[in-house]
Amino acid sequence: MDIFERTRAMFHLPEGVTYLDGNSLGPLPIAAQERVDAMLRDQWGEMLITGWNKAGWMDQPARVGDRIARLIGAPSGSVVMGDTLSIKVYQALASALELNPGRKVILSDSGNFPSDLYMADGLIRTLDRGLELKAPAPEEVAAHLDSDVAVLMLTQVDYRTGRMHDMEALTRAAHAAGALVIWDLAHSAGAVPVDLAGCDADFAVGCSYKFLNSGPGGPAFIYVHPKHATQVRPALSGWLGHEQPFAFDPDYRPGAGIERMRVGTPPVIQMAALEAALDIWDLVDMDAVRARSIELSELFIALVEEKCPELTVVSPRDPATRGSQVAFSHPEGYAIMQALISKGVIGDFRAPDILRFGITPLYTNSNDIIRAASTLHKIMEERLWDRDAYRVRARVT
Amino acid sequence: MDIFERTRAMFHLPEGVTYLDGNSLGPLPIAAQERVDAMLRDQWGEMLITGWNKAGWMDQPARVGDRIARLIGAPSGSVVMGDTLSIKVYQALASALELNPGRKVILSDSGNFPSDLYMADGLIRTLDRGLELKAPAPEEVAAHLDSDVAVLMLTQVDYRTGRMHDMEALTRAAHAAGALVIWDLAHSAGAVPVDLAGCDADFAVGCSYKFLNSGPGGPAFIYVHPKHATQVRPALSGWLGHEQPFAFDPDYRPGAGIERMRVGTPPVIQMAALEAALDIWDLVDMDAVRARSIELSELFIALVEEKCPELTVVSPRDPATRGSQVAFSHPEGYAIMQALISKGVIGDFRAPDILRFGITPLYTNSNDIIRAASTLHKIMEERLWDRDAYRVRARVT
Repeated sequence: MDIFERTRAMFHLPEGVTYLDGNSLGPLPIAAQERVDAMLRDQWGEMLITGWNKAGWMDQPARVGDRIARLIGAPSGSVVMGDTLSIKVYQALASALELNPGRKVILSDSGNFPSDLYMADGLIRTLDRGLELKAPAPEEVAAHLDSDVAVLMLTQVDYRTGRMHDMEALTRAAHAAGALVIWDLAHSAGAVPVDLAGCDADFAVGCSYKFLNSGPGGPAFIYVHPKHATQVRPALSGWLGHEQPFAFDPDYRPGAGIERMRVGTPPVIQMAALEAALDIWDLVDMDAVRARSIELSELFIALVEEKCPELTVVSPRDPATRGSQVAFSHPEGYAIMQALISKGVIGDFRAPDILRFGITPLYTNSNDIIRAASTLHKIMEERLWDRDAYRVRARVT
Repeated sequence: MDIFERTRAMFHLPEGVTYLDGNSLGPLPIAAQERVDAMLRDQWGEMLITGWNKAGWMDQPARVGDRIARLIGAPSGSVVMGDTLSIKVYQALASALELNPGRKVILSDSGNFPSDLYMADGLIRTLDRGLELKAPAPEEVAAHLDSDVAVLMLTQVDYRTGRMHDMEALTRAAHAAGALVIWDLAHSAGAVPVDLAGCDADFAVGCSYKFLNSGPGGPAFIYVHPKHATQVRPALSGWLGHEQPFAFDPDYRPGAGIERMRVGTPPVIQMAALEAALDIWDLVDMDAVRARSIELSELFIALVEEKCPELTVVSPRDPATRGSQVAFSHPEGYAIMQALISKGVIGDFRAPDILRFGITPLYTNSNDIIRAASTLHKIMEERLWDRDAYRVRARVT
């Protein structure tokens, strides 16, 4: 049996639904239900407080971090789980600025996910030392790498269009300009092969609930290059990042390496769901996932272009510069997406006019792609979105 | 049936265990298992991404915040859930310092939980504008309230001894000195009646996994006085605290009131367990919980003092200045606690020499207290901890 037929059978996919929104929230791994239930019953229920040691809850953020490290080309002991992606952005950025203190510019791009820019803005206001955030168009980033740039902070894959930065080239260019680099892997981890170590990236952050399928609100991860991990003193210096949390020392002493990026008590129930999701990832090779993702993406683009000429492809044509999603634009994008969802094909709308479809080989096959394209075709051809749009608007109001 | 017999039946309490560590991690509410399972199956599994609206995940942090507000004397719309307690400390402290910009001192006390002091230290380093953290002995705090103090940040109930600050008097004194006040309610919420509104407190933070029983890593809460909530611009300015998260506006605009204290995606699975735990809290009155807590605490102190003269009571004698826990000291405290746990009575040890017992009327009755005291008596009388200590040390090494 094809490996992806096997993995598909490991997810709960609702009857009658074609799900192309796994880049927003991955579906439920069937094993996650039993895993979470067992965690509640056998660990929390029976072990109570002793679960922190007996069930290994205390070490879990690093143990699970190692499982994710494999998917993003990071060495063991360089990734730890916790908090949310926004918090991890703040930690990475504060650390990078501390390591490169003389410079004043945080360079990002206008395609970055807004929360990353918001967190940078909050940190700049908090630091209050004349720092500046620059966010030129994605294709102009390299040209802005000058001697003022302290940190280059980019999301590798654009959350709307799927446009993918060249991580290796930009990291090299940033280093040549004397800047450190933070990669947001929200739409990369589990989507495309990533080689953090090979690129010599300084920091990376990401979430687990998109392509990794950990469930709503699953914990984030942070990678710190081992050469930096022992140097930075975390801005968010919580007790679980302390060298000896249970010494209850009044003074903060950062923990060993990546452990210092832990802050507070980890979300153990969410972690159980994440572990079940990662069991599926253990079965596949990222290169095989990528090859299938490209195959399905090309098929979807071809079918939609053929059948729905009113839609404009806004994702890059070249698979090498596209993540694992396909996006189209249309002025009535919101209404069209609502019509599509009402017919059981779930994608996502992103303002102002983008229809976004996640391509997730672990549970999406070519039949799904064909069904999605033909449903979209029917909606466009019969202008079903006109009527549906009216209904949707009425409901929203 | 006594209300506390009813609530006790709503928890899973392991066979043969007397659990006096609910001030560290509350036990599993039986309904949490079905609630979490239903959330996974019917919400995540069936609704997928649409759960954010259909299942109300998006509004849940504020809705659940309102349920906790009732337990801490806060008005509806002033509390929101998310992140961890350490992160919430950072948010409250950064906000308070922004509201009181001319002053240089953060006043806490040496009995505060270390993570609060660590987070303050991290923020002071990040702000880098000559701020200073002072942590005198708890009884000397009031005398340190001078015109240099920007913020008074205290944990109401000491995590080791259970000593409880007078929230109303200290808040009044701080305000009279021109300082703002942050209360950490980690050992107060669900432990003692709290009246944030009546005390005119500025900020409060707390966790949900201790007395509130949300499970390991359950989300934290933050309260901001409504008069401040519209004034502060959050240091941790994440997208879910934005006025319109789904406008994907490149500029951050803080959300309405307390909503701006949200940061990233909330932990929806943990929230399901928390909601089940709060259903039990809806059945009881905090004054009744407090009365029963004092009754059980007095019983435990009396029995231990009578039977175990080697142990020194380190909690305040006066119930009015004691939270919902009882602590004793002994030079061999660690070994004694391990011996006690091996006999099925679970308390907690806190360095250097404290045996700590949480008193939690929702599921602890006088039989538990009597059993715990007599087990402790047997251990002390027969010096069982001597042998056990040897075994425990061997295992730790």
